[in-house]
Amino acid sequence: MSNLMTNLGQAAQKVSRQLGNLSTPEKNTALLKMAEFLRNNVPRILAANQKDLEKAPEYGIRPTMIDRLKLTAERIEDMAIGIEQVAALTDPIGEVEKMWQTPEGLTIGQKRVALGVIGIIFESRPNVTTDAASLCFKTGNCVILRGGKEAFYSNQTLVDILQETLLACDLPKEAIQFVSDTSHEVANQMMQLTDYLDVLIPRGSDRLIQRVKQTATVPVIETGTGNNHVYVDHAADLEMAVQIVINAKAQRPSVCNAIETILVHTEVADDFLPLLAVELKKNAVEVHADETAIQYFSDGQLATEADWQTEFLDYILAIRVVSSLDEAINHINHYNTKHSEAIVTDSYQASQRFLNEVDAAAVYVNASTRFTDGFMFGFGAEIGISTQKLHARGPMGLLALTSSKYIIYGNGQIRE
Amino acid sequence: MSNLMTNLGQAAQKVSRQLGNLSTPEKNTALLKMAEFLRNNVPRILAANQKDLEKAPEYGIRPTMIDRLKLTAERIEDMAIGIEQVAALTDPIGEVEKMWQTPEGLTIGQKRVALGVIGIIFESRPNVTTDAASLCFKTGNCVILRGGKEAFYSNQTLVDILQETLLACDLPKEAIQFVSDTSHEVANQMMQLTDYLDVLIPRGSDRLIQRVKQTATVPVIETGTGNNHVYVDHAADLEMAVQIVINAKAQRPSVCNAIETILVHTEVADDFLPLLAVELKKNAVEVHADETAIQYFSDGQLATEADWQTEFLDYILAIRVVSSLDEAINHINHYNTKHSEAIVTDSYQASQRFLNEVDAAAVYVNASTRFTDGFMFGFGAEIGISTQKLHARGPMGLLALTSSKYIIYGNGQIRE
Repeated sequence: MSNLMTNLGQAAQKVSRQLGNLSTPEKNTALLKMAEFLRNNVPRILAANQKDLEKAPEYGIRPTMIDRLKLTAERIEDMAIGIEQVAALTDPIGEVEKMWQTPEGLTIGQKRVALGVIGIIFESRPNVTTDAASLCFKTGNCVILRGGKEAFYSNQTLVDILQETLLACDLPKEAIQFVSDTSHEVANQMMQLTDYLDVLIPRGSDRLIQRVKQTATVPVIETGTGNNHVYVDHAADLEMAVQIVINAKAQRPSVCNAIETILVHTEVADDFLPLLAVELKKNAVEVHADETAIQYFSDGQLATEADWQTEFLDYILAIRVVSSLDEAINHINHYNTKHSEAIVTDSYQASQRFLNEVDAAAVYVNASTRFTDGFMFGFGAEIGISTQKLHARGPMGLLALTSSKYIIYGNGQIRE
Repeated sequence: MSNLMTNLGQAAQKVSRQLGNLSTPEKNTALLKMAEFLRNNVPRILAANQKDLEKAPEYGIRPTMIDRLKLTAERIEDMAIGIEQVAALTDPIGEVEKMWQTPEGLTIGQKRVALGVIGIIFESRPNVTTDAASLCFKTGNCVILRGGKEAFYSNQTLVDILQETLLACDLPKEAIQFVSDTSHEVANQMMQLTDYLDVLIPRGSDRLIQRVKQTATVPVIETGTGNNHVYVDHAADLEMAVQIVINAKAQRPSVCNAIETILVHTEVADDFLPLLAVELKKNAVEVHADETAIQYFSDGQLATEADWQTEFLDYILAIRVVSSLDEAINHINHYNTKHSEAIVTDSYQASQRFLNEVDAAAVYVNASTRFTDGFMFGFGAEIGISTQKLHARGPMGLLALTSSKYIIYGNGQIRE
């Protein structure tokens, strides 16, 4: 194990008790100051970002990724506002969620506490640095951030500024730390830092998440990939179905809550697909359709097995005609990544069966999957969208960054 | 990857949707039948257990472990009663815990669902087979059980009987499966079966748990080891302190919620330790004391660094005199395994600081640590005691074996 990761882990663990016991005003004061320090350092951040942008061709980074990497004064302002929004959220730490008495007269309460030390491995977007750091800090956790090499200078400068703020508030700078070595070797060591990390959250491509899943012995919250579907039932309002499919596919195809495949009940295929074809064309969406559906799309291509498995994250939609609700549910449970799934129907029974039987973090009736989001759900924040079943499932707000402990008040009880 | 583990994983996954959607009466009927089938098969179970007992010397199993391994008609009856108690518990599956409306008019509910497929790796005690299987079944989960080689025939026969019950109830026998190869190699494969297992719960020795923690890429719930403390404050009721220490140490030393070390405030050492010495002697507890405390124990031995780190699980108590509450809290947070910790005090401030600052799943004021137990806490069941912070912390009842999903009712909402 490299000294780097062990040192970061030890330093975090050393201050984690202090962090977990900070009062809400202490945390909020520091968060507001972080926003202020960011605003006071715009030229410094832009200069660091410029160094990353200059290196981008060397790393063979695609233009869409360069857009994610690029910071502007406006984007830095958004980061500062984001931190202020986190300061404004209700602090879950310290809340005793329930309290009860046992027959022996013990009073037991379940109290919300910080997790301890959180590792975040992420790619490209430097705004994850301030997002993740502020959410972890608000919940009394230490965070160790490991960004990609392509945003190295931006991330490091942002963490420097956050640490300067902590010191200015008489708080330990080890609350927010940065992994200054972006090698795969050190990332793998971070994934196995079981003595110091309470949880590891990867944020990025499917490739990153799969690598973490296969390598990490630290507890992981798997986030992100969404191979999502809309099923257009035989009892669907077809106008509504067109709107939902277009929204879920084309409003922002690059995000994890967009859809990749639609399943259309055979009874409505003949009415629905021509309506949809017009709108898909308007939105420049490429169609990969099965043998039944292909006839409605003059420039569509025939779908292959790979299409059902792929998270395109692009203006591409796979289309399959199914003969029953069961066939739709089976297709979804076989190919989906347990993220977000929707049915469009006016059948009460179909809606209930879909809600019960589809296995996903968020299951919708008559709405776009694009709502799977911590802000849209009303959590006021989002550290990611969990696609696993342990600890947290679906959009994760502050609560997902906490644990609990039992506090027990007795008056001399011993066990018989 | 061996075919064995992949086959078990695939078979479980195939039936897991059916399991998750069983109604409460369907599950309870099957559970009651399992108890009945156990009672009808006592001679068959005892015969299998006899085979294990005959092999025990070959595996070099200690007498205390042989007692854990041995089944009797009475112990089998206890297993049957245990299953009936699980049948009587409230079923958490299907409950919608909260439901709210968003500004866009979506109605979002958080519904309790099964985790899916649970792996259990355990040692020695065959009763874990029926305990774990019944709790997983009650919560709509498939379970794959991997017991130790020392209880192979007992475990296999118990699973055979549970599977016969499932078939008699027209339910898939793949809901409860047994790993028939007890090699380390296959256990390691189970720990990495990320495609099929939603969670892995180890139950057994610290060695087993450490191995799982270091090897598993499947999400793990760490259970068990308890290096626990009682701190006797300067403001303690000393009679109460003696009773609590004796109970926590000597009532049942082999369990994880017993204590291993006590910390005594220097101001009360002179009054407290002689009182304690008498009672420890009565209970045949060996003392490993620091240089200050050793004078009160004529046949005590001097404590070493190793004593503070050791979970004795035996009639041995380490004793250290501390000069302040801070020193006690620092000792505990440094050496403990985050399980159960207690303070004896009449100081309000000391009690509050101890509850807030000690990092453990269960923190007690004026009570024995022996109450850390799902039954004592009122959960009606226990699958283990989690010493990690993710997903579940402390005694785990049925709720720890569940996940949630968001169900969303819309009427055509799309995202702007």
